[in-house]
Order: sequence, then C-alpha cells, then structure tokens
Amino acid sequence: MPNPILVEITRGDLVESVHRGAIAIADAGGKLVFALGDVERPIYPRSSLKPVQALPLVESGAADAFGLGDEELALACASHSGEPMHTTRVAAWLERIGCTQHDLACGAHPVRYEPVWEEMIRAGRAPTPIHNNCSGKHTGFLSVARHWDIATKGYEHHDHPVQQAVAKALRELSGESELPWGVDGCTAPNFALPLAAFARALAKLADPRSLPAPRASAARRLVRAMIAHPELVSGTGRACAILMRACGGRAALKTGAEGYFACIVPEAGLGIALKIDDGAARGAETAIAAILDKLGLLGRDKAAREILCAPVLNTRGRVVGERRAAPALTDAGIETLRAQ
Amino acid sequence: MPNPILVEITRGDLVESVHRGAIAIADAGGKLVFALGDVERPIYPRSSLKPVQALPLVESGAADAFGLGDEELALACASHSGEPMHTTRVAAWLERIGCTQHDLACGAHPVRYEPVWEEMIRAGRAPTPIHNNCSGKHTGFLSVARHWDIATKGYEHHDHPVQQAVAKALRELSGESELPWGVDGCTAPNFALPLAAFARALAKLADPRSLPAPRASAARRLVRAMIAHPELVSGTGRACAILMRACGGRAALKTGAEGYFACIVPEAGLGIALKIDDGAARGAETAIAAILDKLGLLGRDKAAREILCAPVLNTRGRVVGERRAAPALTDAGIETLRAQ
Repeated sequence: MPNPILVEITRGDLVESVHRGAIAIADAGGKLVFALGDVERPIYPRSSLKPVQALPLVESGAADAFGLGDEELALACASHSGEPMHTTRVAAWLERIGCTQHDLACGAHPVRYEPVWEEMIRAGRAPTPIHNNCSGKHTGFLSVARHWDIATKGYEHHDHPVQQAVAKALRELSGESELPWGVDGCTAPNFALPLAAFARALAKLADPRSLPAPRASAARRLVRAMIAHPELVSGTGRACAILMRACGGRAALKTGAEGYFACIVPEAGLGIALKIDDGAARGAETAIAAILDKLGLLGRDKAAREILCAPVLNTRGRVVGERRAAPALTDAGIETLRAQ
Repeated sequence: MPNPILVEITRGDLVESVHRGAIAIADAGGKLVFALGDVERPIYPRSSLKPVQALPLVESGAADAFGLGDEELALACASHSGEPMHTTRVAAWLERIGCTQHDLACGAHPVRYEPVWEEMIRAGRAPTPIHNNCSGKHTGFLSVARHWDIATKGYEHHDHPVQQAVAKALRELSGESELPWGVDGCTAPNFALPLAAFARALAKLADPRSLPAPRASAARRLVRAMIAHPELVSGTGRACAILMRACGGRAALKTGAEGYFACIVPEAGLGIALKIDDGAARGAETAIAAILDKLGLLGRDKAAREILCAPVLNTRGRVVGERRAAPALTDAGIETLRAQ
C-alpha cells in the first residue's frame, strides 16, 4: 500500500503537488509509539545518520584526547553550509589531528550559502573538500583513526575499523542485525534500516539511561552539542537551524538527503524518523515542522511557522499558493505523545 | 487510487526514492490512446502550456506585423536559461514592439545557466525581468496587446484580452469548457485541465489539419520553431534541448514547473502530457525520455540516454546508484503507439 500524502502544495484553488512519506516515533524502551506509512522497509537515513556516525568519535576517547568541544561535536553531526564559521573550525580541527584537507575523502561541491558562494565566485576561489557539507563528519572519522593509531587512508571504506565501529553502534542502538549499505554522496558508507528501527536508535540517544555508560555519555554530549549549536549543524537560514532554535533547546534535529529527517527529543525520550518517498527536502521540512508543532515543541517563531506552512511566491513576491501538512499528518493524533 | 511509480532512484542495492505520476497520450482525433494513472484531475501544465499561450501571437497577425521569425516564436514558447542568446533576442524584440523591460510583468530571478550567472556575479550585474525564463512568453503577450492597440499594462491579468484569447484557444483545443486558473511563477495566469484534455490539445498542435486555417497555420509555425531551436526553447545542456535534439526534429518538447512535461509528435499526430505528483523535474525528465524511447524517437545520443537512465554520482564522481524508469512505465506497452 502506498504511503500517505504528508505534505501538499497548492496554487490557486488546486493542490498542485503532493509528497508521500512515512513516519516512525519510538520511545527509549524500544516501543514504536507512532507509525504512519511503511516504517519497516530498509531505507538510508543519509545525513540523518550523522549523530550515530559521530558516536565512535566520543566513545573511543578521541574527542577527549584531541580536546574537542561542543563546536567540533556539532560539526561532526553536521551537513553544514560551508560558511566561514564551519570551514575555519574544520580546518583548525584537521590541523589539531595532524591532517589536512587532502586527507578528506569527500569531494568538493559548491557552497550552499549563497552570499559565501557568490563571494568565492567573485574572488575566483574554488571549493575544497573542507567546504563539503560532510567535512565535519569526515574529520571525525579521521580523528578516530588517528586516536587508534591506524591508517587514515581508506577510512571511508566499509571495511575500515572506523566504519565498522559506526555499523556496530547502529546495530546495537537499533536492534537491526542486518544493515544493507550504499555509498553516500560524500563517499562514506551509509547504512539502511527501517524507519521504526532508526526511530528506536534516536530514542536511545534522547534518553540514554539504558545504554552502557560510555555510550550514554557520548549520546548526551552529542545531543547537547547539536542543540547548543544549531547553525554549526546546518547553516544560516537553514531549516534545521530555524526549527532547532524554534524548539528552544527541547529537540535536536538532523536533515538527510532524499527527504529524510531525524529528531531527538530528550525531555520526552522520543526518537523520530521520517522519509519523504520522492526525496524532496521541502516535504521533509514541512512534515517535521508539523510533527514538532503537534508535540508542542515548535513555539511561535515566524520563520519556523513558515516552514510549517510556507507561502508559494511568484517572481514578484506575491503569494500564489502554500505548502502545508496534509490531513493524513495533521489528523494522525501525534498530540497524544506530548510529554506529560 | 494513487498514481503508479514512474521513476525510481537507487543507491547500492536499494531503491531510495520514487516518483509517482500520470501520463496521457492522445491523437489528433481526440482519442486518448494511452493513459497511466489519473488523467482526469485538473492540473496546471505550467510552462508546458507555453505553445498554447503563444497561439494568439501568431493567430492575431501580431507575429507577422512585427516581422517575427522562428527564433522569436521559439522564445515565446520557452522557459529559457537567461543566456545571452536568449536575452539579446528578447531585448531586440521588446525594442521592435516599442516596449522595454519595464513593461514586463514577470519578476527577475537568478539566471539558470551557471557560467552566465557566475559571470554576472563577478561583474556585479543583477538579473532583470529579461532574464526571467518566461520573458519570451511575456514579450509575446505584449506583442499581441500592441498589435491590437490595447493597454499593455495589466496584460498579465486573467481578464485582459490577451489572457482571455489564451483561455479561448485552450478551451477550443482541449474541449474543456471550464478552466480553473492560478497565478504562475511569472505572474501570468495558468489554466488547469486534465492531462487527457491537454494531451488532446497537444495532439491538435501535432496534426492541425482539423483546425481552422489560421490556427492550423499558427500551430505548424510554433511547432516548427520549437523543433528548429531547441536551445532557444530551453538552454545549453537542458533536458528539453538534449531530448529534442536526440529526437532529430521528430518531436517538440516543453517542460513545465512542478514535474510537468508536454510533447508534440507531428509524424504520429500524438500529444503527450505527463505530471509527476511530487513536482520533481528529475522524475519528469526520465519519464518523458522513457516515453520517447518507447516511441522509437530517442535515438542513441549519449546525453539523452543519460536522462533516460541517469547515474547517481557521489562528490568524487563515482557512480553509486541510478535514476531509471520504473516497471509501471517500461512495461506499459507504449511501443504499440509507434508511427507505422
């Protein structure tokens, strides 16, 4: 059965486009407390996996050994916009572990934040792997390899101990013994698992009391770092940052390519995973905003409310339609999950 | 019932994202010869409507009065990339009708062709309404108003005679008496109709023998102009241009925002309309390429074959998945419609 329509885009009096998808919400006890659509088919969380991919960085002791703080940990979990606040910190971190941009396996791509990208064009500067939105994650991988004193070359391969440590952490948190994998945009492996299973893993990060002490401590530090630095996790004006700020420290959010979104709610011990079938970021952003609103977390921030219900503008700035949560999502009863 | 999956995107061994949609193919006699999904729900063709929006320009005699050739007619049907080949021709055309960019109701937006956009950034030049991808269509509207010697101001409003002429032509070609409308990105009205009805209208442009002589002549000129100038209808490296060139003059193609594609096949007297439910251009491009291939029109051009089956690359340029037509589309029996 096809997944339900979660988000719709109108123009005039008609619905012009729709985004279908699935949502899983779990608690830290491993219970699936909400499901909409197919939450059992394995799917890649893409960059929404980053908080888990960063666990070995902290658990291994590498973060402490290199004196990393919340800013670096936020960057390890980031899909950043390549702004100076990101690139200068990643460059300094690379230097601290005795590496350079040439050790990064991720390729270069245009910087996402327009003013910075335009400035680079004017200056004739090409992007480097440090500008790659995943450069913090990769620097985290390199840090673990350095700390373990093993080869950094090949750290992005599936069979490298760093990636195997990521897979082990994900298996243990999610309860999934089988993790099909593919190569992510940044060259690192990405592991597929059902939305329900990833929601369970995220819930354990939200409330890590049942985890072994080193992992619980790592989870707490990473979630705290994400919540403390929304713009380092994403960038200026990005949905992740706007929504995290609107939640006032009550939730950590992480977008993933192809319409994924992950959310960690410490106060309620909830993990949320959603995927838009067609891969549209606009659909995932409005869907997660609707869930946050239903959970009483979103607040009144104007920019966040405009992700929840976004005006569709023409090139003269006139409103000609809107993007909004569809009935299958708004009427799904998510309100009942609010923390008591 | 939801529309079928037309296109799928893989990563590793898994299907990561899918695009659902509907397809209608009609012949010039008004017969729906192929339908997949819901082809009866009214939907905006967006820029795929442009060949119809350009009919009054020719039928009214305005094109002849202003000495417009195939290049201007191709631009009237275009969603262009704002390259110099487009903007210099639109600017000269505006001058020929005694108008300037200030008469254009469409707003400015960044130029789509990266090398030109980067050059504009380096030179500190802002885009004007002439760079708007719809500036040819708008200059066509202005030309009709000039030719009729009526007010050009407000030409983009639904009740202006130019827009009413567009609506009349669309009603007559499609057989739809009711045309709900919304405001397009460029500020002009866009008229919604079922895919089946728009396919019928396109088929009449493909084989206009049953139309009144002035409209038949206008249809032939516009289709010929589009086929003669694929890059003026779109831009360097754009799917419309690549696919039209690959068809070797046997089909006219026009993309529309939110996942629409229109195709006119004169040799077979066919009109094709498709819409991807979620609005993704990548889905519409692969779906129309698959249809063209099934109809024996696509040929062996490498760039066109890579729209039909597109590699998904990571930031190091390695193939990590593919975008391809899904079984509901490849097994639909479109081959049987090939011109005998």
